[in-house]
Amino acid sequence: MAIKRRKISVIGGGFTGATTALMVAQKELGDVVLVDIPQNEDPTKGKALDMLESTPVIGTDSIIIGTSNYEETKDSDVVVITAGIARKPGMSRDDLVSTNAGIMKSVTKQVVKYSPNCYIIVLTNPADAMTYTVYKESGFQKNRVIGQSGVLDTARFRTFVAQELQVSIEDITGFVLGGHGDDMVPLIRYSFAGGVPLDKLISKDRMDAIVERTRKGGGEIVSLLGNGSAYYAPAASLTQMVEAILKDKKRIIPTIAYLEGEYGYEDLYLGVPTVLGGDGIEKVIELDLTEEEQAALDKSVDSVRNVMKALPKE
Amino acid sequence: MAIKRRKISVIGGGFTGATTALMVAQKELGDVVLVDIPQNEDPTKGKALDMLESTPVIGTDSIIIGTSNYEETKDSDVVVITAGIARKPGMSRDDLVSTNAGIMKSVTKQVVKYSPNCYIIVLTNPADAMTYTVYKESGFQKNRVIGQSGVLDTARFRTFVAQELQVSIEDITGFVLGGHGDDMVPLIRYSFAGGVPLDKLISKDRMDAIVERTRKGGGEIVSLLGNGSAYYAPAASLTQMVEAILKDKKRIIPTIAYLEGEYGYEDLYLGVPTVLGGDGIEKVIELDLTEEEQAALDKSVDSVRNVMKALPKE
Amino acid sequence: MAIKRRKISVIGGGFTGATTALMVAQKELGDVVLVDIPQNEDPTKGKALDMLESTPVIGTDSIIIGTSNYEETKDSDVVVITAGIARKPGMSRDDLVSTNAGIMKSVTKQVVKYSPNCYIIVLTNPADAMTYTVYKESGFQKNRVIGQSGVLDTARFRTFVAQELQVSIEDITGFVLGGHGDDMVPLIRYSFAGGVPLDKLISKDRMDAIVERTRKGGGEIVSLLGNGSAYYAPAASLTQMVEAILKDKKRIIPTIAYLEGEYGYEDLYLGVPTVLGGDGIEKVIELDLTEEEQAALDKSVDSVRNVMKALPKE
Amino acid sequence: MAIKRRKISVIGGGFTGATTALMVAQKELGDVVLVDIPQNEDPTKGKALDMLESTPVIGTDSIIIGTSNYEETKDSDVVVITAGIARKPGMSRDDLVSTNAGIMKSVTKQVVKYSPNCYIIVLTNPADAMTYTVYKESGFQKNRVIGQSGVLDTARFRTFVAQELQVSIEDITGFVLGGHGDDMVPLIRYSFAGGVPLDKLISKDRMDAIVERTRKGGGEIVSLLGNGSAYYAPAASLTQMVEAILKDKKRIIPTIAYLEGEYGYEDLYLGVPTVLGGDGIEKVIELDLTEEEQAALDKSVDSVRNVMKALPKE
Repeated sequence: MAIKRRKISVIGGGFTGATTALMVAQKELGDVVLVDIPQNEDPTKGKALDMLESTPVIGTDSIIIGTSNYEETKDSDVVVITAGIARKPGMSRDDLVSTNAGIMKSVTKQVVKYSPNCYIIVLTNPADAMTYTVYKESGFQKNRVIGQSGVLDTARFRTFVAQELQVSIEDITGFVLGGHGDDMVPLIRYSFAGGVPLDKLISKDRMDAIVERTRKGGGEIVSLLGNGSAYYAPAASLTQMVEAILKDKKRIIPTIAYLEGEYGYEDLYLGVPTVLGGDGIEKVIELDLTEEEQAALDKSVDSVRNVMKALPKE
Repeated sequence: MAIKRRKISVIGGGFTGATTALMVAQKELGDVVLVDIPQNEDPTKGKALDMLESTPVIGTDSIIIGTSNYEETKDSDVVVITAGIARKPGMSRDDLVSTNAGIMKSVTKQVVKYSPNCYIIVLTNPADAMTYTVYKESGFQKNRVIGQSGVLDTARFRTFVAQELQVSIEDITGFVLGGHGDDMVPLIRYSFAGGVPLDKLISKDRMDAIVERTRKGGGEIVSLLGNGSAYYAPAASLTQMVEAILKDKKRIIPTIAYLEGEYGYEDLYLGVPTVLGGDGIEKVIELDLTEEEQAALDKSVDSVRNVMKALPKE
Repeated sequence: MAIKRRKISVIGGGFTGATTALMVAQKELGDVVLVDIPQNEDPTKGKALDMLESTPVIGTDSIIIGTSNYEETKDSDVVVITAGIARKPGMSRDDLVSTNAGIMKSVTKQVVKYSPNCYIIVLTNPADAMTYTVYKESGFQKNRVIGQSGVLDTARFRTFVAQELQVSIEDITGFVLGGHGDDMVPLIRYSFAGGVPLDKLISKDRMDAIVERTRKGGGEIVSLLGNGSAYYAPAASLTQMVEAILKDKKRIIPTIAYLEGEYGYEDLYLGVPTVLGGDGIEKVIELDLTEEEQAALDKSVDSVRNVMKALPKE
Repeated sequence: MAIKRRKISVIGGGFTGATTALMVAQKELGDVVLVDIPQNEDPTKGKALDMLESTPVIGTDSIIIGTSNYEETKDSDVVVITAGIARKPGMSRDDLVSTNAGIMKSVTKQVVKYSPNCYIIVLTNPADAMTYTVYKESGFQKNRVIGQSGVLDTARFRTFVAQELQVSIEDITGFVLGGHGDDMVPLIRYSFAGGVPLDKLISKDRMDAIVERTRKGGGEIVSLLGNGSAYYAPAASLTQMVEAILKDKKRIIPTIAYLEGEYGYEDLYLGVPTVLGGDGIEKVIELDLTEEEQAALDKSVDSVRNVMKALPKE
């Protein structure tokens, strides 16, 4: 049998979805299908064609198409879900949760129908609850449904630390647990600059400011853009996860993983350190937490569970 | 003296400018300053910060900032101008030319003030006339002011040929002369698939269709997007030109170059094959043209000169 | 089923084999098994381990092992054969052919036993005859057994042209047909600099010198090294072919392909332009040749057939 | 003034030097001059030409030349010294030190004569003493003379840890202080897998074995190869250092740096964590050590000073 290119479908042709399609193609990870709703089919085709026309200059053989027809996603190896609405002024959080959960369900049905053996990565917010929804709807094994939040959170943290120290971003590591954004539990003692613990290099005050800025990182971009939210760093984060799976890299990166007892939680999708490889989440890494850290994580979990209450009942 | 990172400024923080900033940073060509007008300063800062937050994941040490203050562009090695308005319904072409020429002049003044030794690449449409305007305003030597159109045109052509033949984009070459878009003069006899002349592989009918689609390539994207124009392939094209200069690659690529007698024209910026390297346009390559080709080029030049009539007088 | 890394085996742990293993790993195309005879097992393990120890710095997750046990090559996607002896002073060409043909047979038996569905790329000289031998021994379909010579020959040609013109190697293309080295038939009219025919840019005298230097390109390196032959450019050429297959790129590149009537020849492996993708040689591209070119190709084929006479009878 | 390519000279055209030249060119960091003694000029030219002939396939515009004439190194930005002899059976360590010190002096004279503003990276063993010798001979400021050992030592450590845990090498960090090889002081508490301290993931016994294997890492390769020593991982390490300087990355990596009081030592080149950027060693990072660690470092320093006793007096 001939060797075939990998296939990646990205659901949601907005800025994050489109930028993810671009970055996946730039890395020549496989062919890319960018999917949006029928009303957006033409712009989605337009973005995909524009990207495709960049490939001769970039030097990458990834074919990118835009469509509203899920049949085109058939036999995808990895599917990335970025679809969903952003919270609008006046919208309650519960309305957001319930609307996006509905979108997740309908998207997942289509994805699973055409790619019953794929791995699914979920970006849509609130990511913990949405990944849970996709998992339930898909009927997939837990390792095949993965949420994104920690790669992005640590990317922001690493950016701010590199800025503070005026050093290469390559040598900064960060570590977060728990929910996304405000619910994030940063573990500074597991964060380093060239292996050197950050508290040797950065004062507590500055460190607190960096953590706070990381927590509010999404909001900072929203407030600067004025209209819309971050998409470059989220897309880069998704692309790293796609690559980890397609190249079976077994990266140790934080993902939103399904917990069955790990860290003391059950039936919950939560941000934890995991091994991400050719079989999706191949392992959840458990850490001993300090009392303080465990308390912060419990609080984060409460917040996630609270959001989940707004999920539509089956 | 310490070795310093290269510095690239991108004027215009819209989709093309922002995507160019991203691609330049992805290639770690240097630090990037994305500039827009004061009214857009916050969104420009937001895009730049979002990109910067992607660098830890991408693994690239390029610092990207957004600003409306040209002082931040000080000592740039290369400046890319993407600023300008798009033609709006009801706007005459002359109005477009005259508005964008005004923008070119004001941008160039600022660019030259802070980076008197830079190389300038112009994307703004109509690119031939706008490159001419920047050249005149800058007072720079002709090799330092370079317009983009042929890299994009050939990228589109190569995409369509690769699609037609179902082969790698890496092995398709294309060749265009003259103005951008409709005024383009494609030289099929200098276009190949793995060195094989395209007329051996593609029927005349299909080839004509591909040429026609290439000519209208910008319009195809505009019409699909519904709102706005292409930015991925233009940004990739600009990035290739930036790289050719910063790495002194001496690429043989089509650029909009100042002609002083080449191809029989004087005092004109026109798309021709050039050697692009560390000293900008190091050479214009002259080809013998068939009568038919020369006639097409003359027509293209007429069209460019016609546009130039709408340029404001000094 | 989980996604698995691709697997590439390289037979022959000498300089070319080892450098190919390195380059395949640098591109993270998959895990690599470097195989040599039992007497060389330790050095082969040493090279592989040294390479593996470079991967954290390079940032690539390819596991490289050295072995003399073909069992380790089980289920390879692509196998590259570099094994064989070099011609020694006093050795007749027929002795070389017969010795290397014996090595090809014994290697192929092992390769096929453990990887019955792989694609095989042959480098061993004389490459046309050796590829034929591997094809016959393997019992594989013709598209699955591919010889290398044209990528290397054109690489050398492109190097010399770029040097002559002082331009980027990215924009030079070359084109060869026929046997490797002295038997090479360069098609200058299909060779370009940025799409410009080389005869517009280089005088006939200089061009002849470049062609002659290309023909003798292997010998030039042998004579400089004093001991041994070229391995960097051969390894890069092999790596490009491995990538074309594993990423299903459908590159249009010259390979040694099995002919069944193409160009007027039967039951012969010969260097011709082909489409190389996920199913190996997916197509042989036929060109109209001038009388002179056809005569040169006939002569090249005579020479290849002459070498093949020394192949051991079944 | 036109933008010029960076220039890197590599002194010593053996396996490590040649592989470094290749890797620097693969990354298109600049043009490369590979230098060896007059007796080896032809093989050095042969290796360089073979590499150059790989560049069209790799797609990189780095011109690589081989020479024995230091004039060709004129105005290098970075010079890498790999020249020197390996210890032969029956040779005392003092003889090795004194012979290589002599080579360092003569090489340094030539390097400094033609590139008075370069940065020098020293690989030759024993690296601490040889870097010291080059520093003294060059008359350069301390930040401009940098030794390699820690990048390689941690690369080996990271390889073994990734193997043990069966995870990506990208997420393993290691940390060493002190002399190279046996004198290495690994700081396990500053070594992580995805930010997780290694002692959570690996038993003490296995960890001790990994550390011991790292210490003997050079010897393991020597003993497998039977003839010669490691060159792939050393070359990759050198290339990372060259890149850190040329791109002004400000990497936090261990290098052999001149100490003036740091860690309690004076007038000594020793492996310590540093910031490596466009001005060479821009900073030495000082860590609090445990008593045990300080004792191990003292021992390592004794060993380095002991080696230095064999350096020829000025």
